Amino acid sequence: MTVTLIGGGPGAWDLITVRGMHALQEADVILTDHLGPSAELDKLCDVSTKEIIDVSKLPYGRQVAQEKTNELLITHARAGKKVARLKGGDPYVFGRGFEELQACAEAGVACTVVPGVTSAIAVPAAAQIPVTQRGVVHSFTVISGHLAPDNPSSLNDWTALASTGGTLVVIMGVKNSGAIAQRLIQEGRSPQTPVAVIQEGTTAEQKVLRCTLETAGESIVDADIAPPAVIVIGEVAGLEVPSL
Amino acid sequence: MTVTLIGGGPGAWDLITVRGMHALQEADVILTDHLGPSAELDKLCDVSTKEIIDVSKLPYGRQVAQEKTNELLITHARAGKKVARLKGGDPYVFGRGFEELQACAEAGVACTVVPGVTSAIAVPAAAQIPVTQRGVVHSFTVISGHLAPDNPSSLNDWTALASTGGTLVVIMGVKNSGAIAQRLIQEGRSPQTPVAVIQEGTTAEQKVLRCTLETAGESIVDADIAPPAVIVIGEVAGLEVPSL
Repeated sequence: MTVTLIGGGPGAWDLITVRGMHALQEADVILTDHLGPSAELDKLCDVSTKEIIDVSKLPYGRQVAQEKTNELLITHARAGKKVARLKGGDPYVFGRGFEELQACAEAGVACTVVPGVTSAIAVPAAAQIPVTQRGVVHSFTVISGHLAPDNPSSLNDWTALASTGGTLVVIMGVKNSGAIAQRLIQEGRSPQTPVAVIQEGTTAEQKVLRCTLETAGESIVDADIAPPAVIVIGEVAGLEVPSL
Repeated sequence: MTVTLIGGGPGAWDLITVRGMHALQEADVILTDHLGPSAELDKLCDVSTKEIIDVSKLPYGRQVAQEKTNELLITHARAGKKVARLKGGDPYVFGRGFEELQACAEAGVACTVVPGVTSAIAVPAAAQIPVTQRGVVHSFTVISGHLAPDNPSSLNDWTALASTGGTLVVIMGVKNSGAIAQRLIQEGRSPQTPVAVIQEGTTAEQKVLRCTLETAGESIVDADIAPPAVIVIGEVAGLEVPSL
């Protein structure tokens, strides 16, 4: 009775780890997200020999409840199947991976985690933006932007986040991007801070927008940016590579 | 004339991406670190057909200057070789990847980046610690601890870092761990904040220490923790998985 939680990486099929690919190849049942390499699963394993179950949580769309996903993991594992749970990015970066691990453990099902390349770092990289650069920043912070800064349920201290001195990377923040940018300016971050927004990074559909903190809210609307997208705020978003 | 910068992941040989493995297999020359999968390179490609060059920067030990590494990349690429630069973790997480990209571009050498699984997330995961957990934290910050908090060259604002409300992950911070912990307490973080220290995570040599912010400095010395190690500070370091 085993479940393997696999980080599928940011989108491109070959940005999953070698260990993750092997776990998919050995699985009897694969529960997939709409994120990561799910659209090109056939490049990683022989899908004809496996049961594939879609447990996507689409933003503002069809959602499979977390409890249902947990139940499917446990039921198939108890039936003696090797179960792979393929997630986008890394299971532990806003991926509810630990909740699935806990649910399995509580049900007596062994569960291992295969880490993945997180979109928070790899998607900026695909637009030639490093989240750190020597002499520029000594830290970076990855923030879930699913709640607006003034939402009482937010666990983020935006006063502190505006002042770390490091890069800010916001994921799941398209809808609240304008409010987040304004709040960071109110808290003292320069309106001219460079910002980059990367939609569907590492895939053929990748779209990159450059702006500043002051213009971010409007620019994101004007450019029709839609999830999934990663927003990078800080000097690194303004670094340039000499063109060849 | 091509150079590929490859994130080799946190240590275990199969935590490199599929794309990274393919780039190693196609390379004529591989420049490696002492980090990532370099000790088990033969599991990823046929090393007998390749020139392998060690450009490690050992902490407090032998160091290859960054300029020398850049020069080797460019010289071999100009000689018509396919050059792979294998780095530990992700090239853009305190990895000087962007500096190498810039150096190549300035020399007219095309350079692509293959992202990697960062130790900052995967090493805690190997000790069953998620850097995020729903309802517990909405952000995490990755900090280079190579400079003490009172070092005038530090670009970190420790007052802000103590107050983000999120998880703190310190890499390259073993030597300064006591000073960092004390500074975070001075800035208002609770002395009872759970801390986990993971040395050589994901490898057979992995060693895990649990303590609190108050005891971290002394505990790390007592346990003989040595680099490379990742320090996780925050409620997630105290989460437990039910044992089977």
